[in-house]
Amino acid sequence: MNPTHNRMRNSLNFSGGPGALPEVVLQQVQAAIAAVPEVGLSVLGISHRSEWFARVVAEAEANILHLLGLDSGYRVLFLQGGATQQFSMVPMAWLAGRTKAADYLHTGYWSGKALPAARREGPVRVAWSGEMAGFARLPAADELELSPEAPYLHYVSNETVEGLQFHRVPGRDDVPRICDMSSDFLSRPGEFHRFAMIYAHAQKNLGPAGVTIVVLRRDMLERARGDLPGFLDYRVQAEANSIYNTPPVFAIYVVLLVSRWLRHDIGGLAAMGRINAAKAARLYAAIDGSDGFFRPWAARADRSCMNVAFNLATPALEARFLHEAAAAGFSGLEGHRSIGGLRASLYNGLTLEAVERLVAFMEAFRRASRGAGERASFHRQGVLASKN
Amino acid sequence: MNPTHNRMRNSLNFSGGPGALPEVVLQQVQAAIAAVPEVGLSVLGISHRSEWFARVVAEAEANILHLLGLDSGYRVLFLQGGATQQFSMVPMAWLAGRTKAADYLHTGYWSGKALPAARREGPVRVAWSGEMAGFARLPAADELELSPEAPYLHYVSNETVEGLQFHRVPGRDDVPRICDMSSDFLSRPGEFHRFAMIYAHAQKNLGPAGVTIVVLRRDMLERARGDLPGFLDYRVQAEANSIYNTPPVFAIYVVLLVSRWLRHDIGGLAAMGRINAAKAARLYAAIDGSDGFFRPWAARADRSCMNVAFNLATPALEARFLHEAAAAGFSGLEGHRSIGGLRASLYNGLTLEAVERLVAFMEAFRRASRGAGERASFHRQGVLASKN
Repeated sequence: MNPTHNRMRNSLNFSGGPGALPEVVLQQVQAAIAAVPEVGLSVLGISHRSEWFARVVAEAEANILHLLGLDSGYRVLFLQGGATQQFSMVPMAWLAGRTKAADYLHTGYWSGKALPAARREGPVRVAWSGEMAGFARLPAADELELSPEAPYLHYVSNETVEGLQFHRVPGRDDVPRICDMSSDFLSRPGEFHRFAMIYAHAQKNLGPAGVTIVVLRRDMLERARGDLPGFLDYRVQAEANSIYNTPPVFAIYVVLLVSRWLRHDIGGLAAMGRINAAKAARLYAAIDGSDGFFRPWAARADRSCMNVAFNLATPALEARFLHEAAAAGFSGLEGHRSIGGLRASLYNGLTLEAVERLVAFMEAFRRASRGAGERASFHRQGVLASKN
Repeated sequence: MNPTHNRMRNSLNFSGGPGALPEVVLQQVQAAIAAVPEVGLSVLGISHRSEWFARVVAEAEANILHLLGLDSGYRVLFLQGGATQQFSMVPMAWLAGRTKAADYLHTGYWSGKALPAARREGPVRVAWSGEMAGFARLPAADELELSPEAPYLHYVSNETVEGLQFHRVPGRDDVPRICDMSSDFLSRPGEFHRFAMIYAHAQKNLGPAGVTIVVLRRDMLERARGDLPGFLDYRVQAEANSIYNTPPVFAIYVVLLVSRWLRHDIGGLAAMGRINAAKAARLYAAIDGSDGFFRPWAARADRSCMNVAFNLATPALEARFLHEAAAAGFSGLEGHRSIGGLRASLYNGLTLEAVERLVAFMEAFRRASRGAGERASFHRQGVLASKN
């Protein structure tokens, strides 16, 4: 394997996550394994109690707040345990012992995972469920009946598996809005000041698996429950500046490098959002223009710019697509095991050029598979039926 | 900074952790940032659901069990949250709801951290405390009065801060022995079959911060409490082969590389133990031969082969030592903030050659500091007094 070949393979990584990182960041990470420039030691051997690491955390926090357009009324924490741990930490902090139910939106695979974790801690009301619609669309604004007395509203901004993304901010402004943005965090601008808490694991748009970013409005810290073990207590983690115990130094350093790239190289979330919108538009245009050969999963209004889930006529044809795509250097195009099919994830690190190459491959594949398209409608019906 | 300079700096990293990794492993990690050889993708962009990652976990588990001389009666888990999370998970699993107290040994800074986390979950008895001895020694076998009815005994095999290490296995064989081996795991042979559970975060001898290895006898899984959130439940984590949620792929991959190095390059724990014993012997000989210029912290019988804590005559002299050591390329020699002084950590990745260079530096420093030794005894008394 030569460097050019490696760069090509990494650039064509459409994985749902851990996913592609920008090439320039990979080069900086590689150098830091030998020595972080300003320290002269491998990033794997520098103490989390060093002044250097305190600066890493401070700059990463500042970059993330700057990118989100938030001020010091918010804190940024770097925690472990992924979004899964947040599914429990959120209700442990603000639901346990309450009598009023928290409102949860059940819009797909990941928001569904948050429900049992919350129910274990306190009362939960599912304010909307997409289950009967096969998780192929999101709620319209007038479908939501939200309680003004809920301790908080929890939802997932982008359903990674089904490729559904909210293009508005749901919920009441008088109820704390808590959002799992794991798969579209820092991918485009937004009204982030309308959130009480945002969380996202790093392995989509921000860095490697092993660190979770929590953006928390300070008043939420004051009302958090106070009798939890330290590692599950947002207040303890905030007071310790994310080094209550040894943090994942390497993963946080990579997040810093990606946040620098977003802020200084790309130029912020407006610019990143334009690039991501162009990528998604190019791929959806290819799907929509395929005369039904490629069938999108999500309703048009709720299509994700990050994860494009689609099907071919038959599982056999999908398997052939994956086989030929792999031979052409593409990877990560399998759909999530829970719904199958195909999925192209277009995270920040993936370039428009890579999307152009995928589209060219898809069109060549379609031309070489004449006749298979006619069977598509049967397969699509079958997939939906098996989900219900 | 050129590569030779970086290698020199990394080789002289005596940090208490995250600490030095073997140079050959750093080179493999650096290559894997561009592409893992057998996959052709950056290690940061490979899915944890891939066949490749399942093989990484399986081989790392097999290597660790082989090195420990354990059979399939044990499981190896790769968790997040550090030893700190284990301080809570252990009593959550086997102490909550019990009436009989678990026995805990309080032998230093880290075993002391385990106590409040355990007391939060259930009854705890401190079966021995080194507090009155200033945590400068460990208990003799006949000082321990352990209960046959305790749900388990918890202790720390190597106190990283004070540089104290058990050179025997304390406890009763009829009570499950649970040991935090964070700072001496896989550093030498031992009777590991006498433990019900061993845990260790990676950032001393095994890899980067961000993953914790848990070695668990299978019968312990059966008696673990069953109503915990999945990420805190050993049974759930074991059933999911450590990918209940997205694991820290990179950190686990580095652990695999270190376990390969230990098993195949070094040749196992007997060989590693001989190297580590030689390193420690060389450094303690220099301390003991310094006519009191360097004062060891730990009682001779309990000296750690991993962490050598010592003092100089005055804080000012210690500051000069650190300053000159840094100028000579050494790093990580500051003592832990809780006790101050100096500390050289001799983890697996640190070479005998590096110890020889440190000893040469120490002897040159001592020759250049004639007269300072006479004040040493006052300072040593002061340090002990301030701890009591």
